[in-house]
Amino acid sequence: MPHPMYEKHQAVLQQAVAAIETRAYWSPYAESPRAYGETAMEDGRKAFEAYHDAQFYLDQPGVIARGGAEVSPYGLPLNISYPRCSADALIAAGKAAMPNWVKAGADTRAGVCLEILACLNARSFEMAHAVMHTTGQALMMAFQAAGPHAQDRGLEAVACAWREMKHVPDKALWEKPQGKNPPLKMEKKFTIVPRGVALVIACSTFPTWNGYPGIFASLVTGNAVIVKAHPTVILPLAISVAVARQVLKEAGFDPNLVSLLIDDAAMPVAKEVAMRPEVRLIDYTGGADFGNWLEQNCRHAMVYTEKAGVNCIVVDSIDDYQAMLKNLAFTLSLYSGQMCTTPQTIFVSRAGINTAEGLVSAEQFGRDLANAVSTLLNDPARAVEVLGAIQSPATLARLGAAHDLGEVLRASRSIPHPQWPKAQVRTPLILKVEVVDQHAYMEERFGPISLVVETATTRESLATAERVIREQGALTLSLYASNPLIVEHAEEMALRVGVALSINLTGGVFVNQSAGFSDFHGTGANPAANACLTDSAFVASRFFVVQSRRHVA
Amino acid sequence: MPHPMYEKHQAVLQQAVAAIETRAYWSPYAESPRAYGETAMEDGRKAFEAYHDAQFYLDQPGVIARGGAEVSPYGLPLNISYPRCSADALIAAGKAAMPNWVKAGADTRAGVCLEILACLNARSFEMAHAVMHTTGQALMMAFQAAGPHAQDRGLEAVACAWREMKHVPDKALWEKPQGKNPPLKMEKKFTIVPRGVALVIACSTFPTWNGYPGIFASLVTGNAVIVKAHPTVILPLAISVAVARQVLKEAGFDPNLVSLLIDDAAMPVAKEVAMRPEVRLIDYTGGADFGNWLEQNCRHAMVYTEKAGVNCIVVDSIDDYQAMLKNLAFTLSLYSGQMCTTPQTIFVSRAGINTAEGLVSAEQFGRDLANAVSTLLNDPARAVEVLGAIQSPATLARLGAAHDLGEVLRASRSIPHPQWPKAQVRTPLILKVEVVDQHAYMEERFGPISLVVETATTRESLATAERVIREQGALTLSLYASNPLIVEHAEEMALRVGVALSINLTGGVFVNQSAGFSDFHGTGANPAANACLTDSAFVASRFFVVQSRRHVA
Repeated sequence: MPHPMYEKHQAVLQQAVAAIETRAYWSPYAESPRAYGETAMEDGRKAFEAYHDAQFYLDQPGVIARGGAEVSPYGLPLNISYPRCSADALIAAGKAAMPNWVKAGADTRAGVCLEILACLNARSFEMAHAVMHTTGQALMMAFQAAGPHAQDRGLEAVACAWREMKHVPDKALWEKPQGKNPPLKMEKKFTIVPRGVALVIACSTFPTWNGYPGIFASLVTGNAVIVKAHPTVILPLAISVAVARQVLKEAGFDPNLVSLLIDDAAMPVAKEVAMRPEVRLIDYTGGADFGNWLEQNCRHAMVYTEKAGVNCIVVDSIDDYQAMLKNLAFTLSLYSGQMCTTPQTIFVSRAGINTAEGLVSAEQFGRDLANAVSTLLNDPARAVEVLGAIQSPATLARLGAAHDLGEVLRASRSIPHPQWPKAQVRTPLILKVEVVDQHAYMEERFGPISLVVETATTRESLATAERVIREQGALTLSLYASNPLIVEHAEEMALRVGVALSINLTGGVFVNQSAGFSDFHGTGANPAANACLTDSAFVASRFFVVQSRRHVA
Repeated sequence: MPHPMYEKHQAVLQQAVAAIETRAYWSPYAESPRAYGETAMEDGRKAFEAYHDAQFYLDQPGVIARGGAEVSPYGLPLNISYPRCSADALIAAGKAAMPNWVKAGADTRAGVCLEILACLNARSFEMAHAVMHTTGQALMMAFQAAGPHAQDRGLEAVACAWREMKHVPDKALWEKPQGKNPPLKMEKKFTIVPRGVALVIACSTFPTWNGYPGIFASLVTGNAVIVKAHPTVILPLAISVAVARQVLKEAGFDPNLVSLLIDDAAMPVAKEVAMRPEVRLIDYTGGADFGNWLEQNCRHAMVYTEKAGVNCIVVDSIDDYQAMLKNLAFTLSLYSGQMCTTPQTIFVSRAGINTAEGLVSAEQFGRDLANAVSTLLNDPARAVEVLGAIQSPATLARLGAAHDLGEVLRASRSIPHPQWPKAQVRTPLILKVEVVDQHAYMEERFGPISLVVETATTRESLATAERVIREQGALTLSLYASNPLIVEHAEEMALRVGVALSINLTGGVFVNQSAGFSDFHGTGANPAANACLTDSAFVASRFFVVQSRRHVA
């Protein structure tokens, strides 16, 4: 008998499985703040503020010390301390917790995971403030991306993994005819067995959105999960881990199935933990160097990485030129380009852009794009809600240095935040370079940095984008083209380099948005990521099937 | 529209998907020779004999020379030559062949794969002779294992991969409500994209049974497949490749989607080809050294290995002692222990075996087992049909050297083959050792070599078997126990080390048999194999999903 939490959430789980098979719009977690009640935002703020200048409570084993030195990109020192636990203790506790979790079976595990997600959903505004003041996202974005959208991604992983596990029956009666003799009859039992201890190494910009798929995919398949937070973005994952542990306890399981591991920049622990032979699954989001190191060195584990890339836009032609500019301005400004899906390199041919308003030269396009961004960000109060704040000093430094890479179409500027005077807010930098200036656009420049690259023809734009993506990787490719032949050409290119393509986005969908249950985030087919959130390959290798057979009368 | 071959085979494909979900008995390929017509055996022999002293026709690109020097373990020189092609040419041709194969879609690819399997089924007796005279299997075993049972394994892989691909819709309409505004509407296309060129490195004992899962799993998911045959066992795969190429051509596809690569022991090519960056999938069956090398070095590819192991039997108690002995005698004798599933190490406690006939001492059990094998093999004409011939001189040498490992309970003997005077036929060697003699039983000794290990208690038997399997790996574990508590204990141990358990086999099922569509062969969870034939993990990473989205009105 599965746990009552399974029955409670069974309908949602089945809807989720249906959603990933149709990939139509669906989400059980409301993205409208109003759905959470009138006081939700304020309650969330209070819950967040209670963490300030306090010890975050987590009853984990092996506490060595307390750590954590998060400072909000909005200038607020959080002064929260977390237990710093030994990896040895967390691994041992995770291993000890697994056998009962395995025996509980796929239905119970899925039910408990959905209960965790439901509890996280109820705390979406607390999470919103926690994510805002660690990642620098604006509050409403933090609410949606780290709340319902991250929960969608977690549920999607549960649904995908549950579907795979349910493909294996618990029992089978095998009855082989033997001509005139009685048939051979065997009863077979099949058990889903986890791979081992799972390590999730989270990033500093989307700790929950990028972290939940790995956490929930590993947990629902029976593995114990150690969540290694980025030293500057701990609170969102500490809350997530605390919620998971609480629900596990309530359901009668060992809370050490999910634990938080922290470190600091001076004494990083991720490499050492990743190399532990007990760690058999690693999910990583972050820079390419460490991601490649994990892929190369962690032969004992399945490694799922989302690393860096150079996302591209190819502009050939567009009917509604102004709508395209508006769409691009928002795309480049949203969270100051600190999304793994934000385009960096925009290819446009010197032949110009065919529009309903006539031909627009490449030069004019660069000016128009710069102006569109400036118009969008004209009002500082509105601008900060789009831009958020810069998460990392490294991004600020990169932005400063980038002004020399080409002709500045639009300089990046500081904007004062009406509420947070110390917030690090920057507007996008837009540069223009030639196609020969490969050093400028052939590497990832994370942050609000875009390069308009002038090419001879759209064919050259597509060919260069293809090479960029093949060599550097990309999560997104965006095309503006009215000519169906060019669209077809781009679609074939996208298949060759394995990148998600968006065509002629001029409305309320932006290329940097990836919708749970519908869009596959990453493909695994180019260097930006060796895995996809969330396809069968992302979940199927997290468990084994072990069988037992015997004759029956 | 899928290819007509899809429609032709659709019903079988759907039955296959149902079978892998229920795991009840099912097979579309008859294992009774009579089902193939009265002249089938003789027709197969003629077809096989036509290959002697001849050039095997394969219209592959990049032919450098001709090679092949197979000698039947029954003493017949085959004198067949095969085109030796450059890996460069096969890789380039495979890559060129993929785009149309990708565009054809999952249904068409599955239909073509089922047509290939149907054509292979029609040639099961030709295959039987080819496998007999390369692997040394007796003719009837070669017919079943390399014919219908191998085809079952191939179809199982197609069904499993097709199910995964069909989880992704070709298209989706995504319609997100926007309150009072019109909804956001997007059309999304999803394309299954192959990982790259696949390499299948086949073994010398079950070239088709172990080879087909990888070949068909990679092919149906859109990859081009290069089949690297073992230098001493080429013909079965040459026939398989020729059939696949013929069907691909008939279906309008480039036959270079499947090609044969040969080498010889003096100039092996597998390492070099495996390290080619274009090779993104590797399936390997064979010794642990090369399997481990592939896992460690081929970071650019997904590597699926089935390597070596020490399969164990634990004997505690059994009601029908004589039936157990008969079952074990056949198990140890079948194909002279040259199966990756044959048990090697038999643990029995000095406390003896409780049976319906009373307590049998461990010593007596050793004598009884030796006698049971001798009784089974008493009649040489029948014996050779069970034993087959020894495939490799290395196995003969290992067998010779093994007599010194312990007390000989039953010496291995040569048996003359009534039909093939030069055949290398050997009966099983059974040794007795103590549990302290770890050097004797803690490593794989491939061939007709079994060790009865005396322990103090069944608990020690189980604990030692657990350690053997954890360290050396195993594909099978067999238990004889009347006590349900011991069965439960063994089941928990099997889950811990991830090994398939068979309990109290005393009838017509043998532990070394693994039934397509029902038994998972290997688990991936212990060192014997890093993958399972055939679960979701075996197929899901062979393809990527690439999407394209645009607004619709």
